[in-house]
Amino acid sequence: MNRALNFNAGPAVLPETVLREAEKNWLNFNHTGMAVMELSHRNKEYETIHEQAKLLLRELLSIPDSYEVLFLQGGASLQFSMVPMNLLTEGKTGNYILTGVWAEKALKEAEKVGNTFISASSKHQQYQSIPTENIEVSEDAAYLHLTSNNTIYGTQWQQFPGNIGIPLIADMSSDLLSRKLTIENFGIIYAGAQKNLGPSGVTVVIIQKELLSRSGNHLPTMLNYNTYADHNSLYNTPPTLAIYLLKLVLEWAKELGGISVIEKRNIEKAKILYDAIDCSEGFYLGHSEKESRSKMNVTFNLTDDETAKSFLHQAKEEGFIGLNGHRSVGGCRASIYNAMPVEHVIQLAEFMKKFRKYN
Amino acid sequence: MNRALNFNAGPAVLPETVLREAEKNWLNFNHTGMAVMELSHRNKEYETIHEQAKLLLRELLSIPDSYEVLFLQGGASLQFSMVPMNLLTEGKTGNYILTGVWAEKALKEAEKVGNTFISASSKHQQYQSIPTENIEVSEDAAYLHLTSNNTIYGTQWQQFPGNIGIPLIADMSSDLLSRKLTIENFGIIYAGAQKNLGPSGVTVVIIQKELLSRSGNHLPTMLNYNTYADHNSLYNTPPTLAIYLLKLVLEWAKELGGISVIEKRNIEKAKILYDAIDCSEGFYLGHSEKESRSKMNVTFNLTDDETAKSFLHQAKEEGFIGLNGHRSVGGCRASIYNAMPVEHVIQLAEFMKKFRKYN
Repeated sequence: MNRALNFNAGPAVLPETVLREAEKNWLNFNHTGMAVMELSHRNKEYETIHEQAKLLLRELLSIPDSYEVLFLQGGASLQFSMVPMNLLTEGKTGNYILTGVWAEKALKEAEKVGNTFISASSKHQQYQSIPTENIEVSEDAAYLHLTSNNTIYGTQWQQFPGNIGIPLIADMSSDLLSRKLTIENFGIIYAGAQKNLGPSGVTVVIIQKELLSRSGNHLPTMLNYNTYADHNSLYNTPPTLAIYLLKLVLEWAKELGGISVIEKRNIEKAKILYDAIDCSEGFYLGHSEKESRSKMNVTFNLTDDETAKSFLHQAKEEGFIGLNGHRSVGGCRASIYNAMPVEHVIQLAEFMKKFRKYN
Repeated sequence: MNRALNFNAGPAVLPETVLREAEKNWLNFNHTGMAVMELSHRNKEYETIHEQAKLLLRELLSIPDSYEVLFLQGGASLQFSMVPMNLLTEGKTGNYILTGVWAEKALKEAEKVGNTFISASSKHQQYQSIPTENIEVSEDAAYLHLTSNNTIYGTQWQQFPGNIGIPLIADMSSDLLSRKLTIENFGIIYAGAQKNLGPSGVTVVIIQKELLSRSGNHLPTMLNYNTYADHNSLYNTPPTLAIYLLKLVLEWAKELGGISVIEKRNIEKAKILYDAIDCSEGFYLGHSEKESRSKMNVTFNLTDDETAKSFLHQAKEEGFIGLNGHRSVGGCRASIYNAMPVEHVIQLAEFMKKFRKYN
């Protein structure tokens, strides 16, 4: 079968072995005579899937016992609200680092809940870099929020702020599971699954247990992290099929050798494309400053709109999917999450060289 | 392949043709070289799925243009909060009819938002019936909320309250698409998909457009119905795979002959089991009063705990899945949603007769 050259920013390519494993069990999971999505979420077969997904995440990311692993719905966009609703208590201030549209949206939701403060921002320079220096934290700070990888601009935190004395909250929707992390440095990590973890429809939240005491009883039940922590994310019916597919992706990641192998592969894949940009003598122009470059989304442009248009057109003709940059920045973007095969990245780099040669 | 005798209360059995159709396209949807969940939600192939799902719902349920059809996440449990957050404006009162645990939960979430009033309740008689008479509506009522079918007790509204002058809000998680409806009589209908519509992980909301003006700007973006209405439920990444499976279920329903054929089938299936109860000379005892009986969940008990235990044990031995009653009421429950084959219902009725004969 011919797999597409799928450079979509998310939902994105998934590992072929995961798709084949799901296919094999599609009509008859584990000899039950039922598809996974026909199982009761209170039944043993499903509970095993649920537990395995949690345990694999704990294992792959070395999540300590002092953290809860929760499965939610609504995507990162719902977390933009849940974080301040649960953590931004009266009189405190939510601190935000702005590195792009997603960080701005997170801030906007916090402003509806309480006081906010912009700790750092690279907005004045079109979000071409991560503002790692001069991070200012307000008085009475409830937390510091950042977006670990910025899909639109192709920037990524290379090193996270060290011990800042307040919980660090990270939206890792586009790079969780792509590299080693010191979980202990974070208060909450959240991620929609549809880039590196599985299909859209399930959100992973990793939360330091001691933060759970901040949530007030007035919160809607489904927006209180305690509801998920107290009921093993089974208070109501979870998105069982999405969690099953998440489990398969995690098994694939473990099989591959775990996070360190995945990280190495991601560095290798990104280098192939950044080399194609850097060795093009200005034919391809990277959007991100070099020290902030994302290993997940490689963003670049061509010297003029006409050539860029022609590049995207020819790339499409040759079967490359999803290379258009986000409408807010234009240009090109190659999203190369965990499941993107190295071979497809090499094919893209070769196409870039070929296109340059004839233009 | 041997399909299980799946009487689960939800997630529940899905049509075998739907599973097979999804299997056929699993690795390579529509010759794209991608699985459905690998498609971008901004791409044409996915948008077609999304539109078709909406259109099929409109067609099957005869939804007028004055209503929006929205796809959300979080299940009915999140709607328990979203309904009052969007509709229960200052000084108004949310009216609730209590017919079971789910209605109680909906009320509890409304109490966190504003004033509430219990319009009718059958709690005093263990929720064995639907309180259709003496429905009292408070002054300044914002809406009247009810649960159309009660999975735990096996009761169902046979006829909804007529024109009450305020929006009627119905949680139809367990019977939407199972019978004909006059949509114009409702302000909002919502349903988690995992009983009659598809897999868990997508929630359908049908809302009268004029109600959208009630939602305040202070609401979290993801909890404001306008976000979904204004962006065609594509403000953020929707649960694309779940919506695709919903679309397949809707195609199956249309193929079968639409709602009237489905309703007839459901009446037929329910009659088979209620007849087995009613003709058992008190061996099987229905939980619901006859005039409130559900066509989705047939609840019954046996004369003593020992016999009930033996019934459930033997049923399990013979391959019947999910017949245990909800822990809060005990006894037995056979959930027979749209996709439950008539043949499986007949098999259960025969087993009930056989068991009675030897006990």
